Amino acid sequence: MMHAAGDVRIEDVPDPAIVEPTDAILRVTRACICGSDLWPYAELQPTDTGRPMGHEAIGLVEDVGADVQTIKSGDLVVMPFAFSDGTCAFCREGLHTACVQGGFFDGYGTSAAQAEAVRVPWADGTLYALSVGEDDALMPSLLTLSDVLGTGHHAAVVAGVKPGDSVAVVGDGAVGLCGVIAAKRLGAEQIIIMGRHEDRTGLARKLGATDVVAERGEAAVERIHELSGGYGVHGVLECVGTEQAMETSVAIARPGGGVGRVGVPHYATIPLAQPMFFKNVKVGGGPAPVRAYIEELLPDILEGTIEPGRVFDRTVGLDGVPDGYRAMADRESIKVMVTP
Amino acid sequence: MMHAAGDVRIEDVPDPAIVEPTDAILRVTRACICGSDLWPYAELQPTDTGRPMGHEAIGLVEDVGADVQTIKSGDLVVMPFAFSDGTCAFCREGLHTACVQGGFFDGYGTSAAQAEAVRVPWADGTLYALSVGEDDALMPSLLTLSDVLGTGHHAAVVAGVKPGDSVAVVGDGAVGLCGVIAAKRLGAEQIIIMGRHEDRTGLARKLGATDVVAERGEAAVERIHELSGGYGVHGVLECVGTEQAMETSVAIARPGGGVGRVGVPHYATIPLAQPMFFKNVKVGGGPAPVRAYIEELLPDILEGTIEPGRVFDRTVGLDGVPDGYRAMADRESIKVMVTP
Repeated sequence: MMHAAGDVRIEDVPDPAIVEPTDAILRVTRACICGSDLWPYAELQPTDTGRPMGHEAIGLVEDVGADVQTIKSGDLVVMPFAFSDGTCAFCREGLHTACVQGGFFDGYGTSAAQAEAVRVPWADGTLYALSVGEDDALMPSLLTLSDVLGTGHHAAVVAGVKPGDSVAVVGDGAVGLCGVIAAKRLGAEQIIIMGRHEDRTGLARKLGATDVVAERGEAAVERIHELSGGYGVHGVLECVGTEQAMETSVAIARPGGGVGRVGVPHYATIPLAQPMFFKNVKVGGGPAPVRAYIEELLPDILEGTIEPGRVFDRTVGLDGVPDGYRAMADRESIKVMVTP
Repeated sequence: MMHAAGDVRIEDVPDPAIVEPTDAILRVTRACICGSDLWPYAELQPTDTGRPMGHEAIGLVEDVGADVQTIKSGDLVVMPFAFSDGTCAFCREGLHTACVQGGFFDGYGTSAAQAEAVRVPWADGTLYALSVGEDDALMPSLLTLSDVLGTGHHAAVVAGVKPGDSVAVVGDGAVGLCGVIAAKRLGAEQIIIMGRHEDRTGLARKLGATDVVAERGEAAVERIHELSGGYGVHGVLECVGTEQAMETSVAIARPGGGVGRVGVPHYATIPLAQPMFFKNVKVGGGPAPVRAYIEELLPDILEGTIEPGRVFDRTVGLDGVPDGYRAMADRESIKVMVTP
């Protein structure tokens, strides 16, 4: 439970129970701390009740409501960071994060994943059953299907990455690193990672980045133009969420290029509306419909073609979660896996 | 020549001549006044030299430079509002408005189209030869290939309009009306025109609009949600260029929808960056590569499937150009054709 910025506590709370007949109860076998959790960790105003945290999980289904049809007790499942009914117009289009009956985990009054168990609404539409054991060696990579891999993939899809493209990834967190994996997977030829933490940019190179740009602001824009033949890159993956990251993203996009933004925006307007116009640059993105992407990304994990689990560099039990937040906030850790 | 806001004069200037071996000289048979010309007509600071105006034309090629290969004297050609070499990486991708050697007509020091003759750089890459006579009955529609039809089409393409979609067109000027034509042509099922001039919205209905929304701001957003089943429209064609138009555009887009903006932006940032994110709405657009679109749009004009020439409701000679500006600025006329 997060009670205020910097204040994460492990508490005994009532076990989650089936509320709606479409619910499932999941015993969490793996969860994680997300880069987006660092926003409330930095900013959350003190709260009376505490806010349950965590929206990424793999777990064993312990119980299902009377109307759940495809998911059953004992299934090992991926829980994406948003729940969705799987049947509305938006889910059918593959935009599960706009589900008309859907929502996000870890708000007030919802169940969340940094816990022993979690209540999952719309179990049939939300959960994705795996056919591996709960301690499979691929578990870290499979866990990224719940958020960061699908989110990096979404940034690349929205940016329009295609074979032969030049791509820049703004942000060297777990999502940025998954963006590198996604851009490579979609055929990008040049992948520039922007970041200044050598452990992260080093890992980015192993995952497929061809260039590293440590500069920021104007200097970064200049450097990327140099690296990409003078006109900027075809695709930009904005994986931070600040106004400066967004400004840089628009500035480094090539005429006709695209910016896929997946960093939760901490800005009210998109800068450089005029250069963006005169360059015919497209900006899109938002909460990734990771549920829709599992089908496409899972085989590459099972075949070992991609290894997104490498973004985890620390594993803690529930008791270690508060220190996990600290480590990620201090950039000591890229991403923390939680084994409740 | 425009000397200041509201001050348009007909002047004798030296005849344009071949400067570069890739130039052509065009005797203008048809030109027009563009909605975008109304921006300097409202805002231009007094200038010493005057600014030549006009960027849309059909004309007869009078002379070509030594290196011009495909265009020849006597050809009747469409002159798009931007010139482009036709060979650079961007032209080859179909984004002629980002041509590395290209540019726009009617700046200072360039030749322009509200004139008897105009110098056209990169004649081979810029001009498109027609196979009709200079007084063909289709001339008004063919003239729209130089800007407004291609621009409306660009808005629809960037907004991602596809068969069955609901579309809203923000702006009832000539570009908005061509946006209606383009959206219908791409298969949109519902086309909502936003505007409050009954002559224009009436014409929009004839061109394919299914609904008219005269409200603005919040009331318009509400009305469009009602009309489109509660979630907004798949595609928005922003054909105005003001901040309010852009704000409305983002607000009425359905989750997963797209905004194609072609109104020259008179704002520095794109509003509603957060709702746009949480709805996964894409915003793109810019100067339309109308040269690239002629090939696709011309057959529909020749076959009479579309009649974009209906946006012209007034024809003037060169002497009538100053009053043509006034009439368009006063919303007395939708679009003025010029026959020098």
